[in-house]
Amino acid sequence: MPNPSLLILPGDGIGPEVMTEVRKVIDWFGANKNVTFDVAEDLVGGAAYDEHGVPLHDDTMAMAQKVDAVLLGAVGGPKYDDLDFSVKPERGLLRLRKEMDLFANLRPAQCFDALADFSSLKKDVVSGLDIMIVRELTSGIYFGEPRGIQDDNEGGRVGVNTQRYTTEEIRRVARAAFELARKRGNRVCSMEKANVMESGILWREEVQWVHDHEYQDVELSHMYADAGAMQLVRWPKQFDVIVTDNLFGDLLSDAAAMLTGSLGMLPSASLGKPMENGRPKALYEPVHGSAPDIAGTGKANPIACILSFAMALRYSFDMQDHADLVEGAVEAVLAQGIRTADLLGEDGKSPVSTSEMGDAIIAAM
Amino acid sequence: MPNPSLLILPGDGIGPEVMTEVRKVIDWFGANKNVTFDVAEDLVGGAAYDEHGVPLHDDTMAMAQKVDAVLLGAVGGPKYDDLDFSVKPERGLLRLRKEMDLFANLRPAQCFDALADFSSLKKDVVSGLDIMIVRELTSGIYFGEPRGIQDDNEGGRVGVNTQRYTTEEIRRVARAAFELARKRGNRVCSMEKANVMESGILWREEVQWVHDHEYQDVELSHMYADAGAMQLVRWPKQFDVIVTDNLFGDLLSDAAAMLTGSLGMLPSASLGKPMENGRPKALYEPVHGSAPDIAGTGKANPIACILSFAMALRYSFDMQDHADLVEGAVEAVLAQGIRTADLLGEDGKSPVSTSEMGDAIIAAM
Ligand SMILES: CC(C)[C@H](C(=O)O)[C@@H](O)C(=O)O
Ligand SMILES: CC(C)[C@H](C(=O)O)[C@@H](O)C(=O)O
Repeated sequence: MPNPSLLILPGDGIGPEVMTEVRKVIDWFGANKNVTFDVAEDLVGGAAYDEHGVPLHDDTMAMAQKVDAVLLGAVGGPKYDDLDFSVKPERGLLRLRKEMDLFANLRPAQCFDALADFSSLKKDVVSGLDIMIVRELTSGIYFGEPRGIQDDNEGGRVGVNTQRYTTEEIRRVARAAFELARKRGNRVCSMEKANVMESGILWREEVQWVHDHEYQDVELSHMYADAGAMQLVRWPKQFDVIVTDNLFGDLLSDAAAMLTGSLGMLPSASLGKPMENGRPKALYEPVHGSAPDIAGTGKANPIACILSFAMALRYSFDMQDHADLVEGAVEAVLAQGIRTADLLGEDGKSPVSTSEMGDAIIAAM
Repeated sequence: MPNPSLLILPGDGIGPEVMTEVRKVIDWFGANKNVTFDVAEDLVGGAAYDEHGVPLHDDTMAMAQKVDAVLLGAVGGPKYDDLDFSVKPERGLLRLRKEMDLFANLRPAQCFDALADFSSLKKDVVSGLDIMIVRELTSGIYFGEPRGIQDDNEGGRVGVNTQRYTTEEIRRVARAAFELARKRGNRVCSMEKANVMESGILWREEVQWVHDHEYQDVELSHMYADAGAMQLVRWPKQFDVIVTDNLFGDLLSDAAAMLTGSLGMLPSASLGKPMENGRPKALYEPVHGSAPDIAGTGKANPIACILSFAMALRYSFDMQDHADLVEGAVEAVLAQGIRTADLLGEDGKSPVSTSEMGDAIIAAM
């Protein structure tokens, strides 16, 4: 069996810094657990644009299709704000999602005990929180046609985007959610706006269909997305797995992430269909962005990116014990009170740097 | 000058109960302040469907076009869940919004001092919170064509909705937001997803245009809507006025409402163009829904609906003092510790009924 292969795309802003710490973890597995990854590295986002004039080179895309898993840091930054839409850093990420057909975006929102005080929510509302948001990632309004901006011939313009979902697109992401629920709390809540959008009606009916035909053992409920946003703020622990579309998932998963109070901690996985070797097409990335304001200062928190690699161990390589080991090391380090700047309150502790945090996690492993 | 005219549409669920309390306030103004409203009442939502087979009768629509302001309770309920999309209770509300051209939906998210403990957020995060979300209400994905569900001829279906915004639709709601900001903290934050949606790019550019040409004195910032959802949870007091589209506004304003911890307290105003008498077309409604689970039990909190009437005094009738009077009475009642069931924690106090709350507010006036 060949070594498992990884493509690392550090991207922009703090992406490269946090990825350096992930490399330490990867190397540790080679040295200590006899798990050697074949690692390639390439450009994405603004970094790719600077080099190639496009936010993702065709060669990089081809490579991403071949490896077992892609690890991405972050894309974007003010430097690229005025670029044409078609070459914005984000288009690189969207192209990866679309062409790798990564339809299921897994966004765990977990509150780490040691950090519960850090949330803007009351401790009892978030402590122990552990929900999984499954966001559809390759369709909906991000990709639907027609789209664009046109003159209306009366001196004004019209901006159009199209929300479009098919039966199969909904069913496959619903299945992903039900499968995850079976390994967790066995409950799925599906969110849409079926009261005002026909695409929401289709969403609701197809999720219900998958439930009734294939996952009757899992508890399914439906909620309007606006009520969902409210309930996430009010009492998030009522949820186990949430499944929703690309656009609602974008807002709801970010709100859920912020509930935990520690954005720098949250990983994500984007999964597609199984490849020939049985592994799903997969891309892993931290939920946080490129944070250009702190890039290069050593303040970035590498944990979200390291936990994204742990998700790769879990979902791409079925190395549950190794994933547990990484996650356990992160918890141990937090329990010791070791904190990057983003995780410090006003208690006068001094923060560790990005690389000191990486080293502490290696030491705890 | 004729009496100001009101059309009251109590609607479904707790709508009629809370509207009864608003009637008391209206009558109080007639008896004590010599302000007499010409009040008509009619059906909307499920109640209209039960009577006429449609969620809004044409005669009611015509009446709504003629009066100075419409006051609406709430629409919807499980009884109507299986109705065809075209006659769902929500369609009655959407028809009012669309045909009255109520493009600016004002959703204040205010945290009442006496209730700050009631939020799921920490007290220092929400106490004193006072933000105004201006949601575009007559366009975007709620109304864009093409829309619908179709067979794809391969045994599956496709659900489509269209997000569509024009220059003028964006500019007019932006102006509403800038006008409001001038009377408040003089800051507007506009939210969209310009990084992935062309309609978001147009939104951002047109809001910026209105700022640069007409409101340079107001501070304008832009934020992606997912980051906006995060920031609302993290530190909502950073915002003054937020302006956003119909769909994002739906989720963001509901999340913001929940931050305050007291959904039963929050009013809203939906405003259109000025009529011949100079007053804007206007509809006022509480943010809460029809709450069918507690309808008829006397548990509903009438404050949101009463504060919606106070907004009518302010925005339709320019009766600022009278609006202050109603709002002051609500604060006084809360300060006295008088609470409906939704506003009680576990401190063993016993709640007052819907009508007792209405009476207490009248007494305080
Ligand atoms: C960077 C951006 C295109 C992206 C999105 O909107 O999907 C991001 O917000 C995310 O959630 O991964
Ligand atoms: C009832 C429903 C159609 C409505 C909406 O989605 O606009 C409601 O959620 C609101 O926010 O006023």
